[in-house]
Order: sequence, then structure tokens, then C-alpha cells
Amino acid sequence: MSAPTSTPMVALTLAEVDDLTFRALTASGVNTANARSVTTSVVAAEAEGVHSHGLARLPIYCAHAKVGKIDGAATPTLTHPRPALVRVDAADGFAHPAIDLGLPALFEAARSQGLAALAVTNSYNCGVVGYHVERIAAAGFLALGFVNAPASIAPVGGTRPVFGTNPIALAVPRAGEAPLVLDQSSSVVAKSEIVVHDQRGEAIPLGWALDQDGAPTTDPKAALNGGTMVPSGGHKGAGLALLVELLAAWLTGASLSIDASSFADNAGGSPRTGQFFVAIDPGPLAGPDAAGRLAHLFAAITEQEGARLPGQRRALARVRTAAEGVRIPATLADKLNAIAG
Amino acid sequence: MSAPTSTPMVALTLAEVDDLTFRALTASGVNTANARSVTTSVVAAEAEGVHSHGLARLPIYCAHAKVGKIDGAATPTLTHPRPALVRVDAADGFAHPAIDLGLPALFEAARSQGLAALAVTNSYNCGVVGYHVERIAAAGFLALGFVNAPASIAPVGGTRPVFGTNPIALAVPRAGEAPLVLDQSSSVVAKSEIVVHDQRGEAIPLGWALDQDGAPTTDPKAALNGGTMVPSGGHKGAGLALLVELLAAWLTGASLSIDASSFADNAGGSPRTGQFFVAIDPGPLAGPDAAGRLAHLFAAITEQEGARLPGQRRALARVRTAAEGVRIPATLADKLNAIAG
Repeated sequence: MSAPTSTPMVALTLAEVDDLTFRALTASGVNTANARSVTTSVVAAEAEGVHSHGLARLPIYCAHAKVGKIDGAATPTLTHPRPALVRVDAADGFAHPAIDLGLPALFEAARSQGLAALAVTNSYNCGVVGYHVERIAAAGFLALGFVNAPASIAPVGGTRPVFGTNPIALAVPRAGEAPLVLDQSSSVVAKSEIVVHDQRGEAIPLGWALDQDGAPTTDPKAALNGGTMVPSGGHKGAGLALLVELLAAWLTGASLSIDASSFADNAGGSPRTGQFFVAIDPGPLAGPDAAGRLAHLFAAITEQEGARLPGQRRALARVRTAAEGVRIPATLADKLNAIAG
Repeated sequence: MSAPTSTPMVALTLAEVDDLTFRALTASGVNTANARSVTTSVVAAEAEGVHSHGLARLPIYCAHAKVGKIDGAATPTLTHPRPALVRVDAADGFAHPAIDLGLPALFEAARSQGLAALAVTNSYNCGVVGYHVERIAAAGFLALGFVNAPASIAPVGGTRPVFGTNPIALAVPRAGEAPLVLDQSSSVVAKSEIVVHDQRGEAIPLGWALDQDGAPTTDPKAALNGGTMVPSGGHKGAGLALLVELLAAWLTGASLSIDASSFADNAGGSPRTGQFFVAIDPGPLAGPDAAGRLAHLFAAITEQEGARLPGQRRALARVRTAAEGVRIPATLADKLNAIAG
């Protein structure tokens, strides 16, 4: 996902990423509390090398806050309709402060009930789903996350999009190191990969997307304008997208993906998408040797030459960016500095 | 999955399937209560046209009960370690009576807590996972099911199996009709498809399985003897298999897939695999128009020419077998009648 070497680049420390992000958001009408929450996630994405959900996405966050597609001053509200269910209404604001509000209540409910869920509704793109489930695992829980997005995957046998790329994420606490995190979309690739190819004027590989007639295409514009994303594993990816749709959108009372406005343009008002997180306390079930059994499972993977655990690339990026900072295209830095004023 | 037309076939009503199954199980040392529970699931599998999990699997169930790989007289025990967590120890018996024991407690917990889970440990192949989640949805809940199995999927980059084909299942209640059910393995095809091809002496398509060196193979024997199943969508299927492994095996305290004895031969004692089910009450979250929003989502699929909802083939089979019964190879009928005595 790095830019071509001919592109002039600018180096930023993570502290500079933090400062630039916060200033760009507040200059776009986002209040301090909400800007702080989103900034933390943007810095985390850059720290882990997930640039598509870091500074590269910030201009559209700011544009959406300016045109009111996101309410930057929204105050999320929490309800607790059942002992194991926590619900947060993001009130057309960013997902991040809504999730931040819900997590402590989720943790308390999962501790007392053994299992609990956080349903976030009327929100917006939550960035990297793995970022949120990792925080749940860091509190000691096995964590699942389900997130919907504007429709871009067609159902099996159809050509018109019904499901978002609808990612699913998992995190599990490990003794003495960061949680293991898995984060994957229901499509072959995340939609941001198509956008990046389009911005660079590059063709996409066959198998990533279909055009509006359902035919395979290498043209990112055909994919983005009326086309659809190919589900991972064919009908099984579409099945997972349905599963995520039911949990993240239908169950939470959020916009179904077919009704959500785009994350990519300024039209249609708030997308009002949803997120659904589950936290499970492994203590009462996994037995006294839970940590040993987890290490045994992971060793069966890592002892195989060439095999790796999910999240290793991000862990390496974390070490590298902490030491070296990040590099972004100079044009992006100029744009963000102009927004930040 | 129908047998070649040259194979002599025998027709059975569903009542005859029920009678034959129950007699074969009890003649193999399975007690009445456990045999009744398993029989109901075998009849349901045949009724839905899932022959691989119906009578075709019954001889191995009986063999495993006879050699003690399944304890046919096991009495599952239920504990309730937290308000939202129900745990059932199958005590090396069939999964079905353990799940039957747990479901009423799961329903009660989900009603009062909003969300609850049933963790089944030390059990055996539970047959069609969709059968179990459908029962949870029929009680009014959004249902998820996760099931592990003896290792047959290699991790990304590796060649030795670590995960079972680890299916995931979903069911959601619908107004005025049966719940929608989704049930899919983490592999390109279920392992039973390979077994069926092997039994018929047929090659398997490229892309289903790898040999012991990790190379694609069309030989079902190479797949079954030291080979691995290809995960659906490559690394994403392996990721899902890991997610299922953590929920169904690690979390429940069951055997990890790498430690589970085979479902296909008589060696190694009880497999002690696990199942994990989640029931969510949609009432407090999905809003007053939950049924209308669900119908809106499904209509966006069914209104597309050629598109279909998951489970439609099984629903059609249910109508057909209720009227016409089922047809099984005469050799299988002979074998089962011999077992039943």
C-alpha cells in the first residue's frame, strides 16, 4: 500500500500525526472530546501501517464533518436495556466516541454476566475494527466485532449490491504480550484497496471486483461506479456478509447497508451504520490451563516454517513506526495542513 | 450428492428413517434418551436432503458407540457459571443430548440477560450445525453456532493441519415462516464431500484439498491421508477457522482440533470436541419495525433474478421428502438393518 517511489513523501513522528489529526478535525467543526477519540484511532492506524484508515482517510472525515454528514458535536447516549446488552446511539456522530462510551459498560457487564454485547447504532465508519476489539481483549475478554458499511457486495446469483464489505474481527488476550487480533472484510479485498488503485490510475487484479453487469473487471472505476466487490470464497463470503449485516445493522437498529449513504462522497446525510461487539470472559469456561492451551494452539502454527499468526505484520509495523515515524505523500500533508489551518 | 443412477436404491419414509436410526443406535449400546436425541437430528438431516449427515453417517456413529469412542450411555451435566453463560459437559457422549439439555437454560438466560451463550464441551460431532441454530431461532432469538472438528486445515503459509473445517452457522427468526439458516464450513467444501468422492472412486476438483506437501490434488486419498482441506477464500477462511477454534474449542475447554481424535476411524478414544452457541434477543435492540426491516433486507436479495437466500435448497428438500420420503443406496440400507438386528 506504499505510494510509488516517484511520489514526494513527508516524514512525520506519531506525535506529529496526533497533532495534525486533532487540529484538522477541530478545524472542521468536530468538538474536542470527539476529535480526541478519533485522533487516537488515526494514530493507532498509522502506527500499525494501516495507512488507508489513517491520515489517508482524514480529509474525507473532515469533509463529512464540514457538510454535516457527520455531526462533529454529537453526544452519544448509552442505555442498558438488559443486563448483558449495552446500547449506544451515536446520534449521527463518529463511531469512535460512541464505542469509547460503551466499552466500560461492556466490560462491567461481561465481568458480571460472563458474556455481554455492545450495540452501536446511528454511527459512521469506525475505522480499523481490529483497533476496537483489541481494546476489549486488553481488558481480558475474548472479543468479536461486526461492522456494516454501504452496500457493495451482491448476493449469490445477483448483480446489485446488498451487503457492505462488512468486516468481522476477533481478539484474544495473551499472557505477556499484546492480544492476537484478526480483522478481515467479507470481500476478497477491502474497498479501500480499489480506491487506492483508482487514485493511482492503476488496474486492479481480476477477482477483486465485478462491473455493473456482474462481469469481472480490472477497471477500478467500473468497480466503484455501479459495480460490486467480490465476496471472499464466493457464496461463503456473501454468507458472512449477511451474518455481519444481521448483527451490525439489523440487530442494532442501524441503517441496513442498502440504505446507508456512501462513506466516499458528501451526499445523502449521515450513513447511520452500526457496530456490534461481543465480550466473553474466558475464566468461567476455558479452564485453569486456558493460557497454556492457547499457547499450544499458537505454537502449532508458528512452529511451521512459513506459517504466521494473524496480526504479525501490524505488530512489526508498530515497532518500526515507533522508531521511525510514518511517511505520507507530500500532497496529502499539504491538504491536511490546509484543513488544519 | 445423489449416488450414481446405477446404484440400486431403497425408498424410506421419514418414519422409517426414524425407526431404523433409533434401532441401529440402541442396538449399538446407546441408551434410549441419547438415541432419541440423535435420531431426531438424523431424520431432520434426511428431511432436508443433507444425506452426508443423515443415514450415511449412522454406521460410523454406531461403530463409535460400540468401540466406546462415544459413550452411548453418557449423562450430560449442566452448570450455569455466570448469568449469561450456560455450560454443558457431554461427558464423552453424543453432542445432541448435551445441546438438548442446554437449550432451555440458554433460552431462559437469553430472555433475562438479552444475550447468552451455551458452551458444550467433551462432546462429539454434532451433525448439521444449522439444525441446532434453527432451534434457537425458532425460540425467537438471533442465533450463532461455532463447532470445531479434528484438524484438517493448515494455517496460512503452513502445510500441517491445525484447524478443523470448523463450521459457523446463523439463524434468524422470520415472521410467518421458518427461520433463515446459514451453515457453512471454513473450508471450500465440507470434508464429507471428499469422503463421498473417495467412496465412489472419483477424483475431486482442484481447489478443494492439498496433499501432504501442500500441493493441490485431485486425489481424495491424498487429501484424506496426511493432506489438508483448502480454506474458503484462502487466508480469510483460515482466519475464520481460527475464530471458530477459539470459541468452540479453546473457550469451551474442549479438545483443540489438533488434539481431537478422528471422526472417521475407531482410534484414539473420544474426540472431545466442542460447540459454542450464542442466542440474542432482538427485541431490546432491533426496534419496533425489526420484522419489516428484515423483510426489506431479504427482498433486496430475492427481487434480483437468479439471487437466492441461504437455506432455500433445504426448504425445498423438506417439502419433497415429506411427500416422497428419501432414497438411500441398498447397500447402506442392508448395513443399517444388519446393525439394527
